[in-house]
Amino acid sequence: MYQIIDGGVTAAKGFEAAGVEAGIKYKNRKDMALVYSRKPCVCAGTFTSNLVKAAPVIWDREITEHSPYAQAVVVNSGIANACTGKQGYEYCRQTAEAVAAELLVPVDSVCVASTGVIGMQLPVDRMVEGVKLLVAAKQEGLEAGNRAAEAIMTTDTISKQAAVTVEIGGKTVTIGGMCKGSGMIHPNMCTMLGFITTDAVISKELLTKALRADVQDTFNMISVDGDTSTNDTLLILANGMAENPPIDAEGADYDAFCEALHYINETLAKKMAGDGEGATALFATRVIHAKTKEEAKILAKSVICSSLTKAAIYGHDANWGRILCAMGYSGATFDPEAIELSFESAAGRILIFKDGVAAEYSEEEATRILSEPEVTVIADMKEGTASATAWGCDLTYDYVKINADYRS
Amino acid sequence: MYQIIDGGVTAAKGFEAAGVEAGIKYKNRKDMALVYSRKPCVCAGTFTSNLVKAAPVIWDREITEHSPYAQAVVVNSGIANACTGKQGYEYCRQTAEAVAAELLVPVDSVCVASTGVIGMQLPVDRMVEGVKLLVAAKQEGLEAGNRAAEAIMTTDTISKQAAVTVEIGGKTVTIGGMCKGSGMIHPNMCTMLGFITTDAVISKELLTKALRADVQDTFNMISVDGDTSTNDTLLILANGMAENPPIDAEGADYDAFCEALHYINETLAKKMAGDGEGATALFATRVIHAKTKEEAKILAKSVICSSLTKAAIYGHDANWGRILCAMGYSGATFDPEAIELSFESAAGRILIFKDGVAAEYSEEEATRILSEPEVTVIADMKEGTASATAWGCDLTYDYVKINADYRS
Repeated sequence: MYQIIDGGVTAAKGFEAAGVEAGIKYKNRKDMALVYSRKPCVCAGTFTSNLVKAAPVIWDREITEHSPYAQAVVVNSGIANACTGKQGYEYCRQTAEAVAAELLVPVDSVCVASTGVIGMQLPVDRMVEGVKLLVAAKQEGLEAGNRAAEAIMTTDTISKQAAVTVEIGGKTVTIGGMCKGSGMIHPNMCTMLGFITTDAVISKELLTKALRADVQDTFNMISVDGDTSTNDTLLILANGMAENPPIDAEGADYDAFCEALHYINETLAKKMAGDGEGATALFATRVIHAKTKEEAKILAKSVICSSLTKAAIYGHDANWGRILCAMGYSGATFDPEAIELSFESAAGRILIFKDGVAAEYSEEEATRILSEPEVTVIADMKEGTASATAWGCDLTYDYVKINADYRS
Repeated sequence: MYQIIDGGVTAAKGFEAAGVEAGIKYKNRKDMALVYSRKPCVCAGTFTSNLVKAAPVIWDREITEHSPYAQAVVVNSGIANACTGKQGYEYCRQTAEAVAAELLVPVDSVCVASTGVIGMQLPVDRMVEGVKLLVAAKQEGLEAGNRAAEAIMTTDTISKQAAVTVEIGGKTVTIGGMCKGSGMIHPNMCTMLGFITTDAVISKELLTKALRADVQDTFNMISVDGDTSTNDTLLILANGMAENPPIDAEGADYDAFCEALHYINETLAKKMAGDGEGATALFATRVIHAKTKEEAKILAKSVICSSLTKAAIYGHDANWGRILCAMGYSGATFDPEAIELSFESAAGRILIFKDGVAAEYSEEEATRILSEPEVTVIADMKEGTASATAWGCDLTYDYVKINADYRS
């Protein structure tokens, strides 16, 4: 069993971080972050499935697949370095080279990530200056992790971090991470920007396997607006400083690691969904007793992606017809007469649909339950034993406001 | 070649219509409509692909597939009669029976359609009273068609009709139709509610073929919010009163009919998209020089469905990165470096993306072009000869407002 602790990317041994104001696009706020490990790391990543991939996605995929190890990640917010052609890739490389020169590490051990407006070129001189500031500022400890988590934010309203410890072979292994949303969030095989660090001793093969398997149930189960970004990147770096017996085969140690990693991924993913652009509520859908896990996931995701359902959640309106409608067009098959729908939140739970028609329930009670900052739809399919949860957020005026004038 | 004329479902010979206030759910507005043909009609329909189908969808599919002919369509707005179980189906049947009794036609010649809130039972007594009012009020002519088109509206801000005449074998054939939107619009193999009448003499087989083929390029290419309704229904009734030589084989006459039908379908579909809930603009995407028609459709639809792109259109913001992003996650394959993107409207046309990077264009000019009530993205894929167009609308505060408190 894992223990939840404070912190993020600097929670694990040997990791340092920094967040600075580099003036990339925003004024008077941090917009560059660095994560650095004092020892070389085994590294794995998952990336956007969007055909249009940002330059840093192409760069990082190369590193996770072919470099012997990774040792640093440099991130900027404000400009996504996507749809920027050869010039954009060149700027990405120059940023990595600047980090390598300052840290005295190989350039192919430096991952790069960008988030922000698509189509604009990075001010590479300011990026290089920013790298110098970052390297000078990098530190161990909670505060440094906080600054890094703040520097990667775009329209996020809060920074997002999580950390746990887990005992493996008599040693305390720590896993921590940070991520950012909060629009163009509909990860597919990966997520927006997420960075996880651990001091576990683990093989690249198993680290990759653990990450890829877990994102299917965590980051890939969230959506803010259905738009799969060009920049989605989730990286995990393991520097081995916990000195646990190497995790190089599946078994109890690997399972313990996976369970702890799952907590980090799920926690960060939920934070991202709940802080979706303009959101006032985290809106989850839990599908239970489905025929297969795959169908449970399809159903849960269809509900949290429905614009009409999201708007109803914003209005605290128990408009369950839209939920059933979204399940109906999801592509999954089920018997609408057999299923049961309930709403649940900290304020209670209420059955709203049963035997093909509305259950007898009080609209006032339903509205009370839906007025909490976290609300869940529970869909009991009455067909099997599989279950899945997806996380989204409500659709609000502010989502429109933020995105009608994002660039200005 | 067809000629555009005024009118809707009463444009073709022998069709009468009515729209009345029956107090189904709304107060002080028309909420029931009737379309009646003095002669029995060949009938075809396409319906929602949503697994959760409203009672009238099940009823109408039975009629279009198995009845010898159809002669009337009765429609109510306010309540969708979806997710209403056996009781809902019984109310649908009772409504059809009331129409049959008043018009002295077989019950299996009466189509039924409903639109509005899901999950609420119809007040069947008021429906039956409404049927009596409708039959007493039914008339030929433009005004009667207008009243019917108004009665089927829910959140629509304008009624939607179109009509044309076309010469077939020396006879003037008329086709007219009406439809309604304007939320939960993402037709799949069919549309929200659409009703087309014609006096053409045409076989059921070819009428069905013509309708099913054309909806693929018209109603199935629009989206307001990505939510495929439980009630989507498109019906066409042909009563043969134009006395043209029967269209019972493919050839010039069938082609002329299809061309005229296409105008009606496309016009109604565009009206539906442009009057999407809360919309301030019709937002079209035309994909040209694609490898295949299928890919062109996937790309066009992905762009008009992107929440981020829709919000940018609302803000008159030339945020083309979101367009490229939506094309990238559509599932279609293409070379992002090769394509060209332009914006077009009544105010002009401007190239915005070429050779993998932003073209040199004036943001002011782009904003001027995007400030028109109809704006089009043109994506030139530079790969082949296929093309497709999809129509949607912008995403606005009012979409959220309408759907956060729709039921209250």
